[in-house]
Amino acid sequence: MDEKSISRAVIKRLPRYFRYLGELKDDGVERISSNDLAAKMKTSASQIRQDLNQFGGFGQQGYGYNVKYLYEEIGNILGLNKKHNLILIGAGNLGQALANYVNFEKRGFIIKGIFDKDTAKHGRLIRDIPISPMEEMEQFVKKNDIDIAILTIPKTEAVEAAKILVRYGIKGIWNFAHVDLNVPDDIIVENVHLSESLMELSYKLNSTITGKGE
Amino acid sequence: MDEKSISRAVIKRLPRYFRYLGELKDDGVERISSNDLAAKMKTSASQIRQDLNQFGGFGQQGYGYNVKYLYEEIGNILGLNKKHNLILIGAGNLGQALANYVNFEKRGFIIKGIFDKDTAKHGRLIRDIPISPMEEMEQFVKKNDIDIAILTIPKTEAVEAAKILVRYGIKGIWNFAHVDLNVPDDIIVENVHLSESLMELSYKLNSTITGKGE
Repeated sequence: MDEKSISRAVIKRLPRYFRYLGELKDDGVERISSNDLAAKMKTSASQIRQDLNQFGGFGQQGYGYNVKYLYEEIGNILGLNKKHNLILIGAGNLGQALANYVNFEKRGFIIKGIFDKDTAKHGRLIRDIPISPMEEMEQFVKKNDIDIAILTIPKTEAVEAAKILVRYGIKGIWNFAHVDLNVPDDIIVENVHLSESLMELSYKLNSTITGKGE
Repeated sequence: MDEKSISRAVIKRLPRYFRYLGELKDDGVERISSNDLAAKMKTSASQIRQDLNQFGGFGQQGYGYNVKYLYEEIGNILGLNKKHNLILIGAGNLGQALANYVNFEKRGFIIKGIFDKDTAKHGRLIRDIPISPMEEMEQFVKKNDIDIAILTIPKTEAVEAAKILVRYGIKGIWNFAHVDLNVPDDIIVENVHLSESLMELSYKLNSTITGKGE
């Protein structure tokens, strides 16, 4: 399995396969053809086969896909069979929303600690997770084997925080701050820029209304 | 300007150009070459020229780009020169976080009303915006010329809500529910699937650690 060659587009589609297969599994479906899966996902069977072939296939001629097996295999590819310890930095509204998502935990992403510079928040709990001062972060990261940090702090603070986190040994950053982080190439950054997503929506609305597109 | 031919990849890059140009403008920079802009954005000058040429150019040989002009033009392409009236459905943690973002308003996205099925929340305000019962949504949408709905409700409720919203005349949906909405083709849906973003991070971490990729 040569993971180097897996395109970003395929990687972006994997979680969606995982979601559909999880729902099929929960519905008690044991196997599904690429045609049926394609119809459900509003994509093409050849797209599905092509994507999954990049990881070695998984399908059998005349049988289709074993739902539970494929679900687990894609989960493994996505690294969901491993546990990740996370910290969340910034206990504002968005930080609180993320800390309250129990689904992340089900997938193996465990938020171990929350940090905020606001002293009024220190000692408070979000789902049993205490909010601590920023000064305690370094020791916490090292003691709790933290590999991912979630950044829900203003962009003016995020760049510096990212630098510090890298020094503490963090391997991945889930960045909600509206800024590009300047970190070494081996640090994985996944950005969620909400206002950019809203602008894309705006662009599409705008071009639908003015040009009517097609 | 043939907007049909603008690729999704270019559209996805536009908000980032907009962000960098906005920062340059705020810093008092009047003009910038594609080389300098590329260095700042860690991309290539030819990529920038190629992207912007899709909208007719904007640059001048030997001068580069006029920052304020390009900022405004990209804003126009993104439809940010128009005001959009929004409603938010679901006043949970994430909904509250989004309702509190004043930056959306600065870009012309005005949240006019918030709806939730929880009667205990009705009448409460988030930044002067009242939370109302779902039953009042139809009249509100029509009276306030609402064109975008933000969905921050569970996936089990989102599919039905989207159908209703389309019937009320909504043109765009910013969907945070972890489900694909089933709406007509002329309705613009922009999905923010947070757990899929986290899975991408997990995938990349996983392949860095195991395969060391590249």
